Amino acid sequence: MIDRPDLTPPDVYRAALLDDVIPFWLRHGWDQEHGGFLTALDRDGAVVDTDKSIWFQGRGAWMFATLYNTIEPRPEWLEAARSGIEFLRRHGFDPSGKMYFTVTRDGRPLRMRRYAYSESFAAIANAAYARATGDALAAADAARCFSAYLRYSFEPGLAPPKTFAATRPMRGLGPLMIAIVTAQELRTNLGDVTVNGRSCTAWIDVCIAQIEHDFLKPEHQAVMEVVGLEGEILDHFDGRTLNPGHAIEAAWFILHEGRLRNDRRLVQLGATMLDWMWERGWDQAYGGLFYFRDLRGLPVQEYWHDMKFWWPHCEAIIATRLAWTLTGEERYARWARQIHDWSFQHFPDPECGEWYGYLHRDGGISTPLKGSLWKGPFHLPRMLWLCGNESRE
Amino acid sequence: MIDRPDLTPPDVYRAALLDDVIPFWLRHGWDQEHGGFLTALDRDGAVVDTDKSIWFQGRGAWMFATLYNTIEPRPEWLEAARSGIEFLRRHGFDPSGKMYFTVTRDGRPLRMRRYAYSESFAAIANAAYARATGDALAAADAARCFSAYLRYSFEPGLAPPKTFAATRPMRGLGPLMIAIVTAQELRTNLGDVTVNGRSCTAWIDVCIAQIEHDFLKPEHQAVMEVVGLEGEILDHFDGRTLNPGHAIEAAWFILHEGRLRNDRRLVQLGATMLDWMWERGWDQAYGGLFYFRDLRGLPVQEYWHDMKFWWPHCEAIIATRLAWTLTGEERYARWARQIHDWSFQHFPDPECGEWYGYLHRDGGISTPLKGSLWKGPFHLPRMLWLCGNESRE
Repeated sequence: MIDRPDLTPPDVYRAALLDDVIPFWLRHGWDQEHGGFLTALDRDGAVVDTDKSIWFQGRGAWMFATLYNTIEPRPEWLEAARSGIEFLRRHGFDPSGKMYFTVTRDGRPLRMRRYAYSESFAAIANAAYARATGDALAAADAARCFSAYLRYSFEPGLAPPKTFAATRPMRGLGPLMIAIVTAQELRTNLGDVTVNGRSCTAWIDVCIAQIEHDFLKPEHQAVMEVVGLEGEILDHFDGRTLNPGHAIEAAWFILHEGRLRNDRRLVQLGATMLDWMWERGWDQAYGGLFYFRDLRGLPVQEYWHDMKFWWPHCEAIIATRLAWTLTGEERYARWARQIHDWSFQHFPDPECGEWYGYLHRDGGISTPLKGSLWKGPFHLPRMLWLCGNESRE
Repeated sequence: MIDRPDLTPPDVYRAALLDDVIPFWLRHGWDQEHGGFLTALDRDGAVVDTDKSIWFQGRGAWMFATLYNTIEPRPEWLEAARSGIEFLRRHGFDPSGKMYFTVTRDGRPLRMRRYAYSESFAAIANAAYARATGDALAAADAARCFSAYLRYSFEPGLAPPKTFAATRPMRGLGPLMIAIVTAQELRTNLGDVTVNGRSCTAWIDVCIAQIEHDFLKPEHQAVMEVVGLEGEILDHFDGRTLNPGHAIEAAWFILHEGRLRNDRRLVQLGATMLDWMWERGWDQAYGGLFYFRDLRGLPVQEYWHDMKFWWPHCEAIIATRLAWTLTGEERYARWARQIHDWSFQHFPDPECGEWYGYLHRDGGISTPLKGSLWKGPFHLPRMLWLCGNESRE
């Protein structure tokens, strides 16, 4: 990808990454006492809750190791990554080997959740850390965590079902798309290793095929968030609820795969998902992306359906730039400018740094938090890193 | 309680109840095909999801049986109550006797939840229905469901813990306050029966004492939503999060008990809870009650913290009128007018009837839904019934 005068220059993203966002998290989020990352930060970075997200120990370690691997080998970034990895090794796993969701600051267990995203984020963290250090245990842990993620996500009976399986079994987009990006990260950092009987590339193929076959609905021009076992639409609140930001994130995972393989069919698939969900998600009245939409235009049950969260905007900035680069179709350049402008006008905090995470529909700030269980050093720095690194690739 | 010229006359509430809200639910929410109540209703009453809330089978049956018992014996109201009771008998219970959270329209199980509010609402429904009909099975079921509610809510080990008990055990205000109102309803309709070794009145005493001792924090002028086992404040997001509407609802349960017993100490307790949480909850900028507030004024983690939901406003209308009647202190009359005016200016839908449930902080409509898994024939008609019936008591 090369620098394009018609889009925001990569330097803008790189400067935000290196001069604002990464220093913010190193200064305020890196726990020098107990190791790992604190993410519940007030506007000015003050810690408002010391509980730790296991997701963010992995996501943070991945981000810092990736900066070390791809921008420059700054010792501080490697130390931050090591801190997250070591916290996970000491405190991330219950006696059965399943990973926790939250622990106290010093690592005592608080919550376990049904699903296994802690495992996927630990997998990418260990893969990037193994590349940075040559640590054989990290390489083994990356494969072991991805293996556990795949088992909990796709083997019936391992994760306790949310819904009574006999009455209305459901499958989600989330486990498939996270399998894709996790496999991509393992392949980038460890090579195309075999996990649970398939290479990373084969897992990516399987998951993309399932998304295309069961979650894309051309008759509705929509990517579903959940479907029935055979891909059927479940005409209830949950079944109809679309998450445009999530589907757009999945779209760029597929666009990225298409670029790596120089596969026009995959590029077209990702671009189609982006086309549909941009139309569904963009708020014509106030700008920005809605959080949830209903497949049939009915009201959504979730209270916060019309809020503007930071992460769908980060994912849409990545997706639109990538679609423009790969297809040259003008609408993607227009959308890339549109989403960049709205995001950079509304989310950044020029006084204290980093981005607000949660805006009302009209773009007003709902909470000044810079981090929480759900927001930390991941979506924003990943976007800034990807968009800021384009000209180097 | 007598009609007071300085407050909104009871007739206003009674007219809204009998001419608008109850007809809306009978017309749109009563399932003539499979029995029971559908609550997922669009603005005009159209059913947008056929899944049924088990909570609302009980809540709806309670409401209709209570109207029959206290306003006039309309056959339609009794039929609606019977419909909910019979649906619960056929489809509400899993083989172990625990009640479901949601089922399909025809009663096949969808979700079970950890806690046992389905049981508390089934208890009050059966108690009111037993009074209306003399049905001995309903009277027995009321006691049986309250017994199960008490066991699941207060006996360690019966409900799977959300939090790892060894690290940070928590107790909630919710189970205690719902035990109070459930015991009050059983006592009203069945007499002061003994359940799990205590009379209803004794359960009320125990629960009020625990709320007063462990959840009221005079040094913070706050009623906590959760505390540690010994009533200690847990200085984390969850532990600091206050729910003013919920605490104000608990306040009027206690004011109501104080009125029945002519107990000034209980009246003072309820009034203190109202005082504190009104100050915490009222939005000085836009009016209305915030959904969540932080004990120390820090940001709240929940996305919808500043939204205006219908039910806290219903509970605050009841609480302020009751506090004014019982204490004669002028601020309660002022608050009663203030919350009435804001609520009736923002929530009712003059075109299609009933109330919107979910407003943005500024009072704008977030969703036109009239009902959902969380909104149905309960908080609004209960408020209109209580406030419309005052002059008859």
